[in-house]
Amino acid sequence: MARIVVDVMPKPEILDPQGKAIANELPRIGLDGFSEVRQGRRFELTVDGEATDEVLAHAREAAEKLLSNPVIEDVVNVSVLDQEN
Amino acid sequence: MARIVVDVMPKPEILDPQGKAIANELPRIGLDGFSEVRQGRRFELTVDGEATDEVLAHAREAAEKLLSNPVIEDVVNVSVLDQEN
Repeated sequence: MARIVVDVMPKPEILDPQGKAIANELPRIGLDGFSEVRQGRRFELTVDGEATDEVLAHAREAAEKLLSNPVIEDVVNVSVLDQEN
Repeated sequence: MARIVVDVMPKPEILDPQGKAIANELPRIGLDGFSEVRQGRRFELTVDGEATDEVLAHAREAAEKLLSNPVIEDVVNVSVLDQEN
């Protein structure tokens, strides 16, 4: 069994109102020093077998075709999270 | 300047209908071999200065108090993503 993580973030030129709202709220609870917050999505994909190169290629394809919206989001990471032998 | 990443995932006992929908869709586009998909959230927090221990402690506090819902989510990672000197 293995888990693959896929991280998707809004493109830099895309406004991120949720991230902005969080950034505005942080100083109100006493947490200063953060100039920007961006909110994206993280997916954990479980595979029954090993995380082979083929499985990783499938995960990359899933990331581009199903897990992200390429108009507004970038896939910033596809990697093996953990693996049990 | 530095960026800190915070990853938040639904707790294992929480149903994740979005993840389930993605898992059901993957075989339909020819991507077999994934037994489960879980969808969570990823935050990138920018700090103007260095990612000191204090800044990381603030990020952990933000993760628990503002970025996650502790009833249904776990903070699975708080770490420095990159740092410019």
